[in-house]
Amino acid sequence: MTNLDLHDISRAARTYGIRSFYVVTPLEDQKELVDKIVSHWVSGAGSTYNPKRREALSLIRVKSSFEDVLAEVADHEGMHPKTVVTSAKMREGVMPFHMLRTMMMENGMPLVLVFGTAWGLTEDFIEAADYVLEPLSGGTDYNHLPVRSAAAVILDRLVGRE
Amino acid sequence: MTNLDLHDISRAARTYGIRSFYVVTPLEDQKELVDKIVSHWVSGAGSTYNPKRREALSLIRVKSSFEDVLAEVADHEGMHPKTVVTSAKMREGVMPFHMLRTMMMENGMPLVLVFGTAWGLTEDFIEAADYVLEPLSGGTDYNHLPVRSAAAVILDRLVGRE
Repeated sequence: MTNLDLHDISRAARTYGIRSFYVVTPLEDQKELVDKIVSHWVSGAGSTYNPKRREALSLIRVKSSFEDVLAEVADHEGMHPKTVVTSAKMREGVMPFHMLRTMMMENGMPLVLVFGTAWGLTEDFIEAADYVLEPLSGGTDYNHLPVRSAAAVILDRLVGRE
Repeated sequence: MTNLDLHDISRAARTYGIRSFYVVTPLEDQKELVDKIVSHWVSGAGSTYNPKRREALSLIRVKSSFEDVLAEVADHEGMHPKTVVTSAKMREGVMPFHMLRTMMMENGMPLVLVFGTAWGLTEDFIEAADYVLEPLSGGTDYNHLPVRSAAAVILDRLVGRE
């Protein structure tokens, strides 16, 4: 996670009414760095300078593992969330956007949408998810959107619509 | 324009099959800076290191004025383009996304989509445009997406769709 990913993805999360934006890393120094950035904008000097950033960055939670995320969401929501992995790679059995959108509107289950960074997600992790979302396509052969742009577009397709 | 806006918006433009990404600034040092970044990735050291960035950044053209952009597009396309301004502010008579999308599919006119940066676009400029696109909404009261995210979402709504 770069500083910019934190800013841009939290602003997209806030725009689309997402409840929390979890950053998962087992590395202590990474966790401290994220905490430092978040607290600068949420309770430190940045919070009065730019309240709009405060609103967005206050959605960020830092966790050591994905299991910790699922446990916290289950605790907050009173039921286990479904997990949906995003991936730029086409694979068999992916879920189309419109299907996930309909599912979300119809059953209101808590849902954890997972984005990988440059290192990507392992195959084991992807296979363990409840669903894999179809890869984003812009109708060309190019699929190299930065994760911060992909996150905004995917949220727009799932929960924001004119 | 920040370095990152150049990278992210050009990647979105390439993803959605946009022909050119014009950066407009009358400031010589800004123009030189953009040219320097672009040529690093398009013909310099970055071009072999990361060909995907090369593909995206090669869409960037730097111009001193919006009139220069319109003149070049008219020259390339053989007809004057329509201009569509994007804005985060709601105003009367804005064009809904679906209407612009339909118009684009039906008449195939060249179209220049305009994004402002932090300084925004002047009211005179907005009034002179052929159309003003409806503001992006994520269904909440928060409309502070960074321009690089807004550009990706707007292109997705206009030309990329599952």
